[in-house]
Amino acid sequence: MLPILHLNGYKIANPTILSRISQEELISLFRGYGYTPYIVAGEDPAQVHQQMAAVLEDCVTQIRQIQMHARQTGIAERPRWPMIVLRTPKGWTGPKSVDGHKVEGFWRSHQVPMGEMHSNPEHVRLLVEWLRGYRPEELFDQNGRLIPELKELAPKGARRMSANPIANGGLVRKELNLPDFREYAVAVDIPGTVEVENTKVMGFFLRDIMAQNPTNFRLFGPDETASNRLNPVYAVTKKAWMADFLPEDLDGSELSRDGRVMEMLSEHTLEGWLEGYLLTGRHGLFHTYEAFAHVIDSMFNQHAKWLDICRHHVPWRAPVSSLNILLSSVVWRQDHNGFSHQDPGFIDLVTNKSAEVTRVYLPPDANCLLSVADHCFRSTGYVNVIVADKQNHLQYLTMDEAVVHCTKGIGIWEWASNDDCGSEPDEPDVVMACCGDIPTMESLAATAILRQEFPWLKVRFINVVDLFKLQPESEHPHGLSDRDFNSLFTPDKPVIFNFHGYPWLIHKLTYRRTNQERIHVRGYKEEGNINTPLQLAIENQIDRFNLVIDAIDRVPKLGSAAAYVKERMKNQIIESLNYAYTHGIDRPEFTEWKWPFDRSC
Amino acid sequence: MLPILHLNGYKIANPTILSRISQEELISLFRGYGYTPYIVAGEDPAQVHQQMAAVLEDCVTQIRQIQMHARQTGIAERPRWPMIVLRTPKGWTGPKSVDGHKVEGFWRSHQVPMGEMHSNPEHVRLLVEWLRGYRPEELFDQNGRLIPELKELAPKGARRMSANPIANGGLVRKELNLPDFREYAVAVDIPGTVEVENTKVMGFFLRDIMAQNPTNFRLFGPDETASNRLNPVYAVTKKAWMADFLPEDLDGSELSRDGRVMEMLSEHTLEGWLEGYLLTGRHGLFHTYEAFAHVIDSMFNQHAKWLDICRHHVPWRAPVSSLNILLSSVVWRQDHNGFSHQDPGFIDLVTNKSAEVTRVYLPPDANCLLSVADHCFRSTGYVNVIVADKQNHLQYLTMDEAVVHCTKGIGIWEWASNDDCGSEPDEPDVVMACCGDIPTMESLAATAILRQEFPWLKVRFINVVDLFKLQPESEHPHGLSDRDFNSLFTPDKPVIFNFHGYPWLIHKLTYRRTNQERIHVRGYKEEGNINTPLQLAIENQIDRFNLVIDAIDRVPKLGSAAAYVKERMKNQIIESLNYAYTHGIDRPEFTEWKWPFDRSC
Repeated sequence: MLPILHLNGYKIANPTILSRISQEELISLFRGYGYTPYIVAGEDPAQVHQQMAAVLEDCVTQIRQIQMHARQTGIAERPRWPMIVLRTPKGWTGPKSVDGHKVEGFWRSHQVPMGEMHSNPEHVRLLVEWLRGYRPEELFDQNGRLIPELKELAPKGARRMSANPIANGGLVRKELNLPDFREYAVAVDIPGTVEVENTKVMGFFLRDIMAQNPTNFRLFGPDETASNRLNPVYAVTKKAWMADFLPEDLDGSELSRDGRVMEMLSEHTLEGWLEGYLLTGRHGLFHTYEAFAHVIDSMFNQHAKWLDICRHHVPWRAPVSSLNILLSSVVWRQDHNGFSHQDPGFIDLVTNKSAEVTRVYLPPDANCLLSVADHCFRSTGYVNVIVADKQNHLQYLTMDEAVVHCTKGIGIWEWASNDDCGSEPDEPDVVMACCGDIPTMESLAATAILRQEFPWLKVRFINVVDLFKLQPESEHPHGLSDRDFNSLFTPDKPVIFNFHGYPWLIHKLTYRRTNQERIHVRGYKEEGNINTPLQLAIENQIDRFNLVIDAIDRVPKLGSAAAYVKERMKNQIIESLNYAYTHGIDRPEFTEWKWPFDRSC
Repeated sequence: MLPILHLNGYKIANPTILSRISQEELISLFRGYGYTPYIVAGEDPAQVHQQMAAVLEDCVTQIRQIQMHARQTGIAERPRWPMIVLRTPKGWTGPKSVDGHKVEGFWRSHQVPMGEMHSNPEHVRLLVEWLRGYRPEELFDQNGRLIPELKELAPKGARRMSANPIANGGLVRKELNLPDFREYAVAVDIPGTVEVENTKVMGFFLRDIMAQNPTNFRLFGPDETASNRLNPVYAVTKKAWMADFLPEDLDGSELSRDGRVMEMLSEHTLEGWLEGYLLTGRHGLFHTYEAFAHVIDSMFNQHAKWLDICRHHVPWRAPVSSLNILLSSVVWRQDHNGFSHQDPGFIDLVTNKSAEVTRVYLPPDANCLLSVADHCFRSTGYVNVIVADKQNHLQYLTMDEAVVHCTKGIGIWEWASNDDCGSEPDEPDVVMACCGDIPTMESLAATAILRQEFPWLKVRFINVVDLFKLQPESEHPHGLSDRDFNSLFTPDKPVIFNFHGYPWLIHKLTYRRTNQERIHVRGYKEEGNINTPLQLAIENQIDRFNLVIDAIDRVPKLGSAAAYVKERMKNQIIESLNYAYTHGIDRPEFTEWKWPFDRSC
């Protein structure tokens, strides 16, 4: 890589800063960035051409020497790579001035300096004079065809910039050699009784992916690989580090010159690196604290637009691996960091972009996360966003169940439901729906309370992994048909939907569904502080107790007879908040809660 | 300002880059940034303290000399300001190591190195030893009170960091001296017949604000002040520029050492500058191309969260001026730039944050923009987002009408409606609603077609300026009551809503409204290219012809008898697209369209 800064001095309406500081400062800056800068400067094309050729030759020779030295000695140290600052006028060789205003070598050449072609003969004269400067009579024959000697100069085949496979990375892309994700499965005998750190399990899967694809996969994260529990990868590769080493780095810093884990506390840089890496035909994963994914909103937007255009309008471009984004350290478990770290809105942005290129998954447990991750790593041409927390969470599905559930993307959990238990098929009285790991636990706990308090109540439990299942099939390729939606959610029964993100996102996705007003959604509503998990859930009303109250308020059968249960729920809320306030942690009934039923009705 | 880089060497789990490059590179970097760096480094607190005191004294003296020289000579040139790199160990004076692992001077001290207070006596011992190192017996008396000699050292009154008015800028905030915005009014005799560049008119208002508040207001924009038509401000102040000048800068570059227009092609930097400026008690406006507002999503999020916390939990903090954001060069007029410049989703983000601190305005014309801007410049404690395009647009309301309309935030435009024309009050057959300058024109044009083709059809025309009027009053302080909403939109008539942004945002805001399924929304749906304005509108179906078809499809009275009109609309769409494709511009019927009725029924 040989960086060239084309310092032409101007932007659309201003000088650039680097062109208006002293040469000494400019050189200092690039030395400070670790380069050896070379300046190529001039206004005479013929001279600058020769000068540039000579400097390029020098730089390439230097790069080769650095490489040779490292290969011969086996010592890989950070060299001072060369870089070039090319100082030529903006709008070089164009008209020097137009209408008495400087154009060449000035910001005005960024604009449309001769814009009056219909009405101003002087502008036409300038255009003709400028184009004549290229001496077309020497370049084309009488029929206007490029002369053969020039045509011959152009490179052929894959040497043409437009046909170079390096610039069309999908052509050289190799599938990942993926281990079987089922081998990392968490054993689940009775649902909702075992706890595991979900992303840690994914860390072991990633470890083996990186071992089996040692030149083809990189992991990108802002100083959070260990925090997000993906540190099992360090068993096979370290964090890339080219600056100085100290002896103490050997004790846990996990740094190495050839590490394939890219850590830098700059989400922009990481996202840019990953995009570039994918464009070369390779694979990767970007992970970040959920709230700070907004730092890359604009970059995500542009990549999604680019994917959409490639898919629909650029048939020659071969698909590249999907941009895989894992959002962890989620809104609901920011006990130490608080309000500033609570923002589940990145997926709102994602749902604004083309349905053809966007996918959002919220796996409820580790086995689902494995199944979803495997699917994402095999795909091309998408932005896949996976939301999964790093803390200990209850596990619900066996690996076989997880594969089926994630393949459907949405489904009834029979073991949590009781509306299919009688000898005759029955309609549910209420549908308890959920999406996201933490809301799923709260929804299950609410379902357990409802079933214990009202054993005659028919409850259906639905979990959503693939968010876009909620949209109609006309709007997203993953969308459920209205028939499927209505047979899952019924056309008219109350739905108490507990959501990981902002609640209105569910309304945005379901507003076309039958009787959408009976879908009652809970989610994050910007109520947060340095709270215990249950406090935070209660503040935003996604907790088990508020969900039970929501069901009582909406199920006609649970009229005023349910008043006692509602009172008990309110008492529980008050007692939980008081306990958390006093002790700084949640009550053991919450932290040790398990699903109280077995798999049968 | 004396910047101090505390280079303690580590982040949460990694060394920092600047601590692991050579001193020469480090010094070069800060020289390249334009500073004279001074290094203060050491591990012995007593020595570093003396060294730091001496260097601080030097730096302050240097700063004073630079200032004195500039004031005496009257020559303001960019000096090499001093800055300090302070290199001390991370976790300085804490335990050197814990459990055999290095802690002081290592990343481990970022974490919780002695976390086992309940179970590990060695951790307790280390903690006690560390705290004893501060020699509490010399600091406190027998009752645990700070000894008087030390208490005496603390600064008093406003010299206390917590009570310094400079750190609580609202205390020193002065109201802007605002000119009367009505004086910049565009004359509107017949609505929809005169064209004006909306933001240009605001530019004249801004010019006089900056003239009347020469030390209290700054304008921030990424190299787009002229592009966004706010360049009238250059008559009173220029762009701040501290680097070198060239003679040609005098011809249109609008640069000066003391300019109060802050231009830099970095939305982050601008947003940060403006936030900092507001926190000192001053005022400002940040403007940007609409699509690139996403660059500051994360910064907006944090500022909105901060405002929310201040409002509800920090009673001593005095309100600062609102963060005013103008989004111009909007999605619908990106004829030259295309798909990458089309993204109206910043306001989606804004609607996720606390209703207490967020406001979104989409003024349909220049007089409304003036009224809205004046309101925003007087407010404190909000993020105000104004969406207004820079191109020529039709003008609809006189200044008096605009003030009333913007104060209500939403209203019926009687001159465009015909459902109140009979002698008896009548229900409308259809409500044509709109929000945003360009959608308003298309909605009006559709209304004109409907009224011309079906003179017996009762059409009500509603324009929304204040987006949050659409939410229920329970959700946002600006929200309309259901009674007001239903009397405007009727409880059951079809609403054809033409929106500036993503259509589902309107569903997100209105999903609780009566019979929300009859609200049919058009907006941007990621269909775009380098299109003419009408092409782009048609691709996204916000154009007049598609709106007429929408009305025909939804108004029962306009059954199959309207088939001929529907055919004509389809013909118009095809002819418009063909013309734009052939000529690269829109048909004159579109570009020269004017509202065809006068003010009476």
